[in-house]
Amino acid sequence: MKLRPWIALAALAAVAVPELGLAQEATEAAAPAMDDTPPMAEIGYIFTTFMFLVAGFLVFWMAAGFTMLEAGLVRQKNTTMQLMKNMGLFSFAALMYYLVGYNLMYPGDGWTIDGWLGAFGAASLEPVGLAETETDLTYASVGSDFFFQLMFCATTASIVSGALAERIKLWPFLIFVILLTALIYPIQASWKWGGGFLDSQLGFLDFAGSTVVHSVGGWAALAGALVLGARIGKYDKDGKVHPMPGANLPLATLGTFILWLGWFGFNGGSQLYMDTAGNVADISRIFANTNTAAAGGAIAAMILTQLLYKKPDLTMVLNGALAGLVSITAEPLTPSLGMATLIGAIGGVIVVFTVPMLDRMKIDDVVGAIPVHLFAGIWGTMAVILTNPDATFTGQLFSIVIVGAFVFVVSLVVWFVLKGIMGIRVGEEAEMNGLDTTELGMEAYPEFSQG
Amino acid sequence: MKLRPWIALAALAAVAVPELGLAQEATEAAAPAMDDTPPMAEIGYIFTTFMFLVAGFLVFWMAAGFTMLEAGLVRQKNTTMQLMKNMGLFSFAALMYYLVGYNLMYPGDGWTIDGWLGAFGAASLEPVGLAETETDLTYASVGSDFFFQLMFCATTASIVSGALAERIKLWPFLIFVILLTALIYPIQASWKWGGGFLDSQLGFLDFAGSTVVHSVGGWAALAGALVLGARIGKYDKDGKVHPMPGANLPLATLGTFILWLGWFGFNGGSQLYMDTAGNVADISRIFANTNTAAAGGAIAAMILTQLLYKKPDLTMVLNGALAGLVSITAEPLTPSLGMATLIGAIGGVIVVFTVPMLDRMKIDDVVGAIPVHLFAGIWGTMAVILTNPDATFTGQLFSIVIVGAFVFVVSLVVWFVLKGIMGIRVGEEAEMNGLDTTELGMEAYPEFSQG
Amino acid sequence: MKLRPWIALAALAAVAVPELGLAQEATEAAAPAMDDTPPMAEIGYIFTTFMFLVAGFLVFWMAAGFTMLEAGLVRQKNTTMQLMKNMGLFSFAALMYYLVGYNLMYPGDGWTIDGWLGAFGAASLEPVGLAETETDLTYASVGSDFFFQLMFCATTASIVSGALAERIKLWPFLIFVILLTALIYPIQASWKWGGGFLDSQLGFLDFAGSTVVHSVGGWAALAGALVLGARIGKYDKDGKVHPMPGANLPLATLGTFILWLGWFGFNGGSQLYMDTAGNVADISRIFANTNTAAAGGAIAAMILTQLLYKKPDLTMVLNGALAGLVSITAEPLTPSLGMATLIGAIGGVIVVFTVPMLDRMKIDDVVGAIPVHLFAGIWGTMAVILTNPDATFTGQLFSIVIVGAFVFVVSLVVWFVLKGIMGIRVGEEAEMNGLDTTELGMEAYPEFSQG
Repeated sequence: MKLRPWIALAALAAVAVPELGLAQEATEAAAPAMDDTPPMAEIGYIFTTFMFLVAGFLVFWMAAGFTMLEAGLVRQKNTTMQLMKNMGLFSFAALMYYLVGYNLMYPGDGWTIDGWLGAFGAASLEPVGLAETETDLTYASVGSDFFFQLMFCATTASIVSGALAERIKLWPFLIFVILLTALIYPIQASWKWGGGFLDSQLGFLDFAGSTVVHSVGGWAALAGALVLGARIGKYDKDGKVHPMPGANLPLATLGTFILWLGWFGFNGGSQLYMDTAGNVADISRIFANTNTAAAGGAIAAMILTQLLYKKPDLTMVLNGALAGLVSITAEPLTPSLGMATLIGAIGGVIVVFTVPMLDRMKIDDVVGAIPVHLFAGIWGTMAVILTNPDATFTGQLFSIVIVGAFVFVVSLVVWFVLKGIMGIRVGEEAEMNGLDTTELGMEAYPEFSQG
Repeated sequence: MKLRPWIALAALAAVAVPELGLAQEATEAAAPAMDDTPPMAEIGYIFTTFMFLVAGFLVFWMAAGFTMLEAGLVRQKNTTMQLMKNMGLFSFAALMYYLVGYNLMYPGDGWTIDGWLGAFGAASLEPVGLAETETDLTYASVGSDFFFQLMFCATTASIVSGALAERIKLWPFLIFVILLTALIYPIQASWKWGGGFLDSQLGFLDFAGSTVVHSVGGWAALAGALVLGARIGKYDKDGKVHPMPGANLPLATLGTFILWLGWFGFNGGSQLYMDTAGNVADISRIFANTNTAAAGGAIAAMILTQLLYKKPDLTMVLNGALAGLVSITAEPLTPSLGMATLIGAIGGVIVVFTVPMLDRMKIDDVVGAIPVHLFAGIWGTMAVILTNPDATFTGQLFSIVIVGAFVFVVSLVVWFVLKGIMGIRVGEEAEMNGLDTTELGMEAYPEFSQG
Repeated sequence: MKLRPWIALAALAAVAVPELGLAQEATEAAAPAMDDTPPMAEIGYIFTTFMFLVAGFLVFWMAAGFTMLEAGLVRQKNTTMQLMKNMGLFSFAALMYYLVGYNLMYPGDGWTIDGWLGAFGAASLEPVGLAETETDLTYASVGSDFFFQLMFCATTASIVSGALAERIKLWPFLIFVILLTALIYPIQASWKWGGGFLDSQLGFLDFAGSTVVHSVGGWAALAGALVLGARIGKYDKDGKVHPMPGANLPLATLGTFILWLGWFGFNGGSQLYMDTAGNVADISRIFANTNTAAAGGAIAAMILTQLLYKKPDLTMVLNGALAGLVSITAEPLTPSLGMATLIGAIGGVIVVFTVPMLDRMKIDDVVGAIPVHLFAGIWGTMAVILTNPDATFTGQLFSIVIVGAFVFVVSLVVWFVLKGIMGIRVGEEAEMNGLDTTELGMEAYPEFSQG
């Protein structure tokens, strides 16, 4: 990092300048087109737009949830770094999704390669007071859609940070986030949600993103964990696993509750319309199903760890709830409450069995992100066929494989390139002493002595 | 706990299977009935449904609030257990309210015993895309109502967990929660909110549940505290009280703020309609009154502890704010801002005087749940007569006594039965060493050495 | 503090009594005027009112954000005091804004001095079920507006508490808060938002309060910091600065995320209408711009501290995000996404350069409130002219100076008077040992031994 300050600032300025002109134009208010619109259309527009904003701020809140979950599950000496990574990843995701991702994912003006690669160009919002361009009022404001979709992109990046904690360098991680949120996530998301080939050719169903968001984050994390290697001392030569317990479980629990809350927006907002009684009733089902799936995952993990280990395991319960949420995300609408509970419970079971499995494979996932987001994400995506007759086994399976192969391979390449160019792992001494003092010079809890 | 894993999972599956069939049917979308409905009815339906969802997620958030409050007020060595209990109680509450509680509380298809005992049967939501059964659109979606009401049921269970902290075993506590949320809470709630005899015969008024939710949680906690006994070392033979300060006051304060926020949904959503200007204006009054009552409770506790003890007491201020919230919950609509402030302030005063009173009676309530939810709940229920001319002194008082007697006696029986069958209290050594290591094998703050 | 308890309670009662009569009257429901209103007007009323409530609870949540931010950035020994101050300041702000501030700020019934001093009198909400007085339904409920505006007033007080932490006495601080929220804030806010002379004479534009809220809090904090002096040991005689790192950075990060979330309500709700497609689309732009400005501020601070100090600084990144938010607050609507990012980024740069500047001036601002809220607030207010052609350089600059001079001078006088009458600073020994044990007798983390 030898750049001079003014270079960085100039780069930031360059980002902004292309649109400086637009700002002034935007102040012409008044929306003449609205007079010709029947009231119910405009009311529906307001309902759906406001719903996107409420759902969007709930999904934003998930960024805090991941941050607290991860800060609670890492050790004291790496906490500041984990906080820094989460602040950074959300901020860069916001920037890159605006500059590249949004139009790449929703190629409104056409595809660069039809059905496979969206359009390049920065996002721009509707003019102030609504534009003449927004003549029909049949849907929702561009700004609300952008705001909502941005949060999904950022969520994908949040998933990665937990798995790779306690040993990855800050800037290579953030460079990966930049590529993930500008390119990898939006490209594959366009295949389904942008109307690309998974949607139009394979009939792939993924309501709110068990695959498009969660397993994508999981694949990127898995690739990173493989390239990065396990933390020093986590696995010894005899294959014995040394637990490295998180420093602050109340924080991790708080993070779980925040994510649970945010998920109502994540799944509920993915209904994408709130302009009719039918749509708002569907959103209600989604809220209820999302909640019960999380409960099912937590209960399953609590009972199962009681039975397997004689003592219920809080971190498994937390991850069980999250796995329940991931599991219901591909189809939160069609299941009954009972079926949603069961789908979530199986997610919780998956976590309990796959966390030790990863350890046996010496894949070091600090917070359990791969079991929760990748394995439960795959389960949730397949579970769509249980309740939604429009889903097909092959359509779901092929889409999981295609998205997985794309994200995993590209991520692997990016991680290897980053490793070759700048290194992605901190030095051994830095890892032993903790990233907070060595990399950042700032302790998270400077006055709480270590036991 | 000698069950084998597959038994537990089979039980979970049995829960879900009865409704598996419904899920598929539900995918028939389209709502023909809607065409015959005047637009304003459908718009009102959307408004009220969305209001329930927003209020409902705020009340959900209170589960996190109780968790943080309690995790902050217990000692370090019992923190993981308190987190576990809160994750468990919410999850089991969600399951039981779906399986039994909802229909028992709102006996839409008739009462098992008219006005006294609702209907048995699992809840089921409206079909996807709205059903033909939902012809009138005069109210709100079933799913949104279920989601909102579920959160109230879970709140009742949250109240119990704080009072009994630091000594109760996990599973007996959760079994009590199961009975509370499946049976005890819904049965008495049906007497008022399901249109039962307290509502129809006594004219009982309890807008958002000072009695139906808060005092119910308080009575159940009181019964538990009596059966369970005080923590070792809390009271010595001379009647001297040994304070056992909470380990993490920022967490407790965060929990209070979360609860305060969630209470806007708790009280505001209890207006139950947002389809007219009059209703949304009433919700606004409720928000403003709820806020000012909390402020009144906090200020009263701050001034009073300054005067009594020369130093204001933060935990009293936190509980004062909560008591202010409980106090306004029975009638958040009719008071003026000034009256709401006063009602809340008296709640704060009650807390300051009754916390030491319980200690003198050697009733060990770890977080002050009984003063806050039971005593201030009684006060708030009686205070309805100050501002709402429809309330009567006898109607309020008799209802408090009837609900209290029912909940206290049944809870006492359940606690005694649990004590007899499996024991409800951890061993002495476990209590001294802390429940986290002995019962769960997981410390909440493993790296922060004890001072 | 030698008052007897009953005097304090009598004072509280006196506050409430004047309005006791109103409460009963208010129970006459029914809104006959509504029949004459076209449906769209009533629907717009519901939309805007509900928007105020949602935005209002988000801004309420900022009180928790400030509390966590400050509790994380002070040292362990002063944490309980910081929690107490934040509980107290919000509660007293709620009380004073109701008793005095609201009518002083929105002089609906006329000015005491036209354009300069509003009306005195306690706020009163619309009657239950809506009153005959609310005939036109053209806007939103009084209660929702009061609730929303109250939160802005409380935010101003929150800003002050962080800057003066670790040395100011509790009660003098709260007395300042009472004067700030009853008089200082509302009077200057009326000049712009109440239609006073800054609005009508100078054409001052300040959408959501970079000046009216944030710089006002900053000026009051600056005056307090000057009168109070630096913490013992912060600056030695050679001008060397001794860092006093915060005890709990996860809390500080949580606080930042809470504030970021709350800011969507702060800026979005300041659109003040959600009754048309145009208005809700504008709110969407505001959400997107607010988010990207925060991201810009965080990224700028992260890159800049990397370049300047070789290690990115988490507390600078947190304050950078907040400065980005403050910077966009004066005009979150007209900028493009790129321009909003740039405005926020400059806010982040300002923080990085002005935090050490204050230290060189030996002005001890514990959490960086003055750089974030005052300096970035000034920048944001001037930046309005970049994107909104209705703003003038002189209109913005003169307004900043007038508001700043008023608030700074009055605050300085109040601080000096408080210092003369009762002293505002704790004794030297109390400061060294920490305010928690000496002033409150309660440790925030009693079991975590100091390193």
